[in-house]
Amino acid sequence: MTTLVRNAWYVAAWSSEIDDKLRRFEILGEPVLLYRRTDGEIAALHDRCPHRLLPLSKGKRIGDEVQCGYHGLRFGPDGKCTRVPGQDKIPPSAFVDAYPVEERNDIVWIWMGDADRADPATIFTLPQFDDPSWHAHQGGALHIRSNYLNVAENLVDPAHVSFVHPTTLGNSASENVPVHVATEGEAIVAWRWIRDAEPIGFFKAFGGFTGNVDRWHYYYLYTPCTAVIDFGSAPAEMQIPEEERDRGNRVFALHFMTPVNENYTIDRWMHLRNTAIETEEASERIDQMFQIAFGEDKDILEAVHAEENRPQRRRPIRIAIDRGPMVYRKRVAEMLERERTHDVSAAGNGAYVYHD
Amino acid sequence: MTTLVRNAWYVAAWSSEIDDKLRRFEILGEPVLLYRRTDGEIAALHDRCPHRLLPLSKGKRIGDEVQCGYHGLRFGPDGKCTRVPGQDKIPPSAFVDAYPVEERNDIVWIWMGDADRADPATIFTLPQFDDPSWHAHQGGALHIRSNYLNVAENLVDPAHVSFVHPTTLGNSASENVPVHVATEGEAIVAWRWIRDAEPIGFFKAFGGFTGNVDRWHYYYLYTPCTAVIDFGSAPAEMQIPEEERDRGNRVFALHFMTPVNENYTIDRWMHLRNTAIETEEASERIDQMFQIAFGEDKDILEAVHAEENRPQRRRPIRIAIDRGPMVYRKRVAEMLERERTHDVSAAGNGAYVYHD
Amino acid sequence: MTTLVRNAWYVAAWSSEIDDKLRRFEILGEPVLLYRRTDGEIAALHDRCPHRLLPLSKGKRIGDEVQCGYHGLRFGPDGKCTRVPGQDKIPPSAFVDAYPVEERNDIVWIWMGDADRADPATIFTLPQFDDPSWHAHQGGALHIRSNYLNVAENLVDPAHVSFVHPTTLGNSASENVPVHVATEGEAIVAWRWIRDAEPIGFFKAFGGFTGNVDRWHYYYLYTPCTAVIDFGSAPAEMQIPEEERDRGNRVFALHFMTPVNENYTIDRWMHLRNTAIETEEASERIDQMFQIAFGEDKDILEAVHAEENRPQRRRPIRIAIDRGPMVYRKRVAEMLERERTHDVSAAGNGAYVYHD
Repeated sequence: MTTLVRNAWYVAAWSSEIDDKLRRFEILGEPVLLYRRTDGEIAALHDRCPHRLLPLSKGKRIGDEVQCGYHGLRFGPDGKCTRVPGQDKIPPSAFVDAYPVEERNDIVWIWMGDADRADPATIFTLPQFDDPSWHAHQGGALHIRSNYLNVAENLVDPAHVSFVHPTTLGNSASENVPVHVATEGEAIVAWRWIRDAEPIGFFKAFGGFTGNVDRWHYYYLYTPCTAVIDFGSAPAEMQIPEEERDRGNRVFALHFMTPVNENYTIDRWMHLRNTAIETEEASERIDQMFQIAFGEDKDILEAVHAEENRPQRRRPIRIAIDRGPMVYRKRVAEMLERERTHDVSAAGNGAYVYHD
Repeated sequence: MTTLVRNAWYVAAWSSEIDDKLRRFEILGEPVLLYRRTDGEIAALHDRCPHRLLPLSKGKRIGDEVQCGYHGLRFGPDGKCTRVPGQDKIPPSAFVDAYPVEERNDIVWIWMGDADRADPATIFTLPQFDDPSWHAHQGGALHIRSNYLNVAENLVDPAHVSFVHPTTLGNSASENVPVHVATEGEAIVAWRWIRDAEPIGFFKAFGGFTGNVDRWHYYYLYTPCTAVIDFGSAPAEMQIPEEERDRGNRVFALHFMTPVNENYTIDRWMHLRNTAIETEEASERIDQMFQIAFGEDKDILEAVHAEENRPQRRRPIRIAIDRGPMVYRKRVAEMLERERTHDVSAAGNGAYVYHD
Repeated sequence: MTTLVRNAWYVAAWSSEIDDKLRRFEILGEPVLLYRRTDGEIAALHDRCPHRLLPLSKGKRIGDEVQCGYHGLRFGPDGKCTRVPGQDKIPPSAFVDAYPVEERNDIVWIWMGDADRADPATIFTLPQFDDPSWHAHQGGALHIRSNYLNVAENLVDPAHVSFVHPTTLGNSASENVPVHVATEGEAIVAWRWIRDAEPIGFFKAFGGFTGNVDRWHYYYLYTPCTAVIDFGSAPAEMQIPEEERDRGNRVFALHFMTPVNENYTIDRWMHLRNTAIETEEASERIDQMFQIAFGEDKDILEAVHAEENRPQRRRPIRIAIDRGPMVYRKRVAEMLERERTHDVSAAGNGAYVYHD
């Protein structure tokens, strides 16, 4: 049974990944062709010629159109066939699916589900993207051989930080600090404050703290595939209240998970920060620290995925720290159930499934 | 459901590939042992000892017999067991299947189906093999990770040449020239003439033409796995009629496809030509050009095969240029249906299938 | 249907392979964590945290306990959970299976089946391990991509020696010497004497014989996975009776097969000998000869396994030399049937299988 939610906006790429070349991606198990039109807009087509199934990305651009590399059929950015060599008439079945695409803040979003439900107003954003006192910096893309549910769950799970990232994002001071979990509309939020403790490696390097700090982690997980980790520190003597976190060193680490298929996930990560906003050196140092930390996650998540795919004799146990992940998995299960029910009724309305 | 036709002659190897060594091949999913007997004839045995299943190709020759490398059972070129170490009596079940083999014009043909239907008179040949005004030259073997149907279909499909081989076998002059399709007995023929056009790269290099030419392509496809591409050019001012193609530079490119299994095909190719028949340099230049062109096909065919093996939501569309391929696929489907029906009745007559 | 017998002692490792590090093994398809406690005893745990399934071998030692590398759950060498970060109560389901382990003569034995049936008194041993006139030497570990039944069968099969090991353990003098087969309690024994013949390569190098010898091979196979090959030679003029083999050059080659899974077997081999017991050079020369010979077996056994996994049209035939292997396979089938029946009744008693 699929774990992949179709009716949602996913990050297909950073804007810088898409140019005039024909590039193939895999998203939700589907091959997708992305290229930038001459007017700068991005076209997204199912990457398979409807004739002999050659990926269109193996063809070539003719203006804003794509010409198949096998028999020369041409398709516009809307997926409609404009030419079939050897005949004058273009059959109505000669088209490829085109996917809604939106570009925001140098991020390319794609909608793989029912096109008529794609509402750009629901695309994730943050006011800080447009706030001049904040700096946004795109990091890298982590390729993880694991189902996306494991990756996402990890991002609403502050409890793993002390054990997986002991030298970068966490330290042993946090091991027994309780985690709060709540839902705020679309978001599941897990958070904790560690008061009056030694700063973690990250803020030692970045914030230049000399004494003890109050440290916070707020994990916001938006179903199915977007996470914001609001973390930061402030000198312990400031005794800042929870709602005044902007007074400290504050970083939003953003994770956009793209399920390539059931067994592979790309996690594109970036950050916004409210300090040292004019120096690229700070961006680089943050990237370096994230790269180490996310490599630690990747190692764990791939091992978990491999173990999930072996025969099981017992149900996994659930413990107190699992509240965030459990709410998340329940929400995804509900989304999938809605899509399953919807698909069944759609099929009853005449949809035709050729082969799966 | 299998796509592999059993009752047909297939090219197992070029003659030069077979010597006194025990060599293992895979044909129609079956392991086959080929070796040359002391009298020069070729033996073809199922490459699996009936005792503990070791491939006989891992054993050794004892005269014209093969001795298994595990327990020393010996088999003659007819597949009958001649010795079982440790006992005097040879059980009747101690044999391996022997396949009919015929060697013609340095080509080794094998029959993998019902042995009593193997008629050497039906093996493909051309009168030009024995015509001293023609030269035959064996090329190479293209290994393609694709079902053979895609490979064969490509060989009765002139329409792909302009798009897949724009710099070698085709050019844009041919894009919109209509293709004729007909059947001539066993063969499906697709052909077209491109009159008074610039010569293609191939004949520029080989024919030494300076002005425009009349160019022809005749694709003959013999079900299931043999193709002849009769192509050539003549100066446009000659205005040669279709039936006098021998007056121009004429080449027969032969393709012998061997389905290794459902996902892998070997395409052994060679050519016959009526010009420059005494110089090996011409052979080498033709080989070089074919290698480039067939590498272009391989790239396309493997991508198509990979895409066919992904989940499908739509039926592929068919267009006007598909007539040749469609007739071909229909003929193969009929052959398979005959074999399926035949196999059922054979099984009813006592055949025993141990496991599949 | 599984071929893996669970209620048996298997060799998990040589003692030298296990130290204070967390090491992961796979035995009978299960992931197993082995490490040496501070008191020198060996702990064996199912290598999968019951919480999020991370292999415990990816965590770290905290004294004699193991801490999971994801969320810090801790388990004692008995598999019981001792700590769950973030909560005080430890749920009863928080445990991992611990396997009975016994260490004897520098060999680590493990019991993967029902723990209450694990009787250390049934572990294989030989009196010569404690006999000062004999020398024991641990060889290597042969990794074979084959089901263990093929590997074991090979070890009660003297008939293959002439064909698989013609230059090391056998020669053509033995090809037609009959093999005796009998059962002695737990063991299946196959043996033969080759009287007054040229010594084989092994004893030419090791025994220093100049004239003809009497040579014996006794293959003892203990179901499911232990084999002893008692082989040796004595000068033909001694005419030693069968029961006085200690008067000749006598070697016990021991094979401990560990089924990693249905398709992979580790064969740990060692030997005991009654001559040249004080020189390590003799051990090394024996190891070298065994390495060549067992490499020959590996090649055969992997080819047989690969061929067994291809479609079959016929049943394999059985011949006279198969008596030992046939008794062996029958005994294993009976053990599996007992376990299958037992498992069914156990399941009826409330056992719960989550997923397979």
